[in-house]
Amino acid sequence: MIVGLGPGSAEQVTPEATAAIAAATDLVGYQGYIERLAPRPGQRIHPSDNREELDRARLALALASAGRAVAVVSGGDPGVFAMAAAVFEAIEERPEWLRLEVTVAPGVSAMQAAAARLGAPLGHDFCAISLSDNLKPWAAVERRLRLAADGDFVIALFNPASKARHCRIAEAFDLLRAVKHGATPVALARAVGRADEKLTLTTLGEADLSLVDMATLVIIGSSETRFIGREGARRWMLSPRSYGARR
Amino acid sequence: MIVGLGPGSAEQVTPEATAAIAAATDLVGYQGYIERLAPRPGQRIHPSDNREELDRARLALALASAGRAVAVVSGGDPGVFAMAAAVFEAIEERPEWLRLEVTVAPGVSAMQAAAARLGAPLGHDFCAISLSDNLKPWAAVERRLRLAADGDFVIALFNPASKARHCRIAEAFDLLRAVKHGATPVALARAVGRADEKLTLTTLGEADLSLVDMATLVIIGSSETRFIGREGARRWMLSPRSYGARR
Repeated sequence: MIVGLGPGSAEQVTPEATAAIAAATDLVGYQGYIERLAPRPGQRIHPSDNREELDRARLALALASAGRAVAVVSGGDPGVFAMAAAVFEAIEERPEWLRLEVTVAPGVSAMQAAAARLGAPLGHDFCAISLSDNLKPWAAVERRLRLAADGDFVIALFNPASKARHCRIAEAFDLLRAVKHGATPVALARAVGRADEKLTLTTLGEADLSLVDMATLVIIGSSETRFIGREGARRWMLSPRSYGARR
Repeated sequence: MIVGLGPGSAEQVTPEATAAIAAATDLVGYQGYIERLAPRPGQRIHPSDNREELDRARLALALASAGRAVAVVSGGDPGVFAMAAAVFEAIEERPEWLRLEVTVAPGVSAMQAAAARLGAPLGHDFCAISLSDNLKPWAAVERRLRLAADGDFVIALFNPASKARHCRIAEAFDLLRAVKHGATPVALARAVGRADEKLTLTTLGEADLSLVDMATLVIIGSSETRFIGREGARRWMLSPRSYGARR
């Protein structure tokens, strides 16, 4: 089973995911996610480094093939820039892995948790783009950013930065600033649902990109996205359902 | 509180959503969603027709303003083509509504539930587009479809059909067939997580669009998306994490 743990809060883990973790003999995952769990006595844990997704998938499939009941745990939704793709990439490597019964338990992604805290920034057509160029050429990312801006989609950026590539988010913003209005609402949503959550509302022109790290989800509005001011509270961010008919 | 009920199964409703519903004095929502709940004695229900989102939002805000604890219930994730945007659109209409405490409880969207049942079709950059032209010009939809195809995004289509506009999905496919390969994997995922669930794996060229109705989520692959065949079971659908480096 490939299990989504949601963004961080136990209140946002589905009963399906909780039951899958309880039923597993083996828990496989990035150690940061394994640490969120309270393994029961006898349950084996297999924590690993964040970069080794394919090796982790192979380990899980080998364990399952040996008769273990394995839960591969993933933050957010395993289907959205997370472990599900890695498991299905690995599954073709051995015929016996293809015969395994595999179930995916979806979860609330970081993008959705961020949107919920902000108001309704994804209320209209949107794109989700990973800025990681570990597995794709940066030119493909640039091309997608440009087309997403041309289409006036709301844009959610996953993996916007890492120690190895802090400049990528700056390059992405440079590109978007050249084609979108500087006043476009932007949210930098860090560690949503966790104790160190930090939400920053800004604009495309003024965003301080030093605030963006690996745990940050970036949402860039469409031309219709707006902030709604409130007294004594953070503004809401809204991408209205209607398009092309501004009030 | 604006509450996401997930795609249909009780196992995919978060504890946060369940608690919000239990704590509410008033449940407001489309009657199809209200019917999924088991209101406790004394809890008032306010079911409404599917088309009246803004009126439903106003009713919820008026009740909350009068001191009621209101849960606006929404299928899937309220932040993704659902009730959150309507509530925040309505909230600006009256100063007292802007002072309300509003919380959004995200949920698993139909798109994610469909992806989980299919394998990992959203494992790479994707766009989510609503085909409804109730609130946006069809030309904007066409433009976005074209740009999403140019960018080789995986494309998830929400609201692909209704009684009023059955031809829109055919128009969308005609447009995509002109620019993407006919062999591109396509999934038609109907009523995922419900008793009448039906999953159809096909291709862009061969898809039978008569199978597409209001309850269907359509996923159209990128050039890298593929099916993984299995003996005696439905194929998996995978959009691998890597791009531009086909094995």
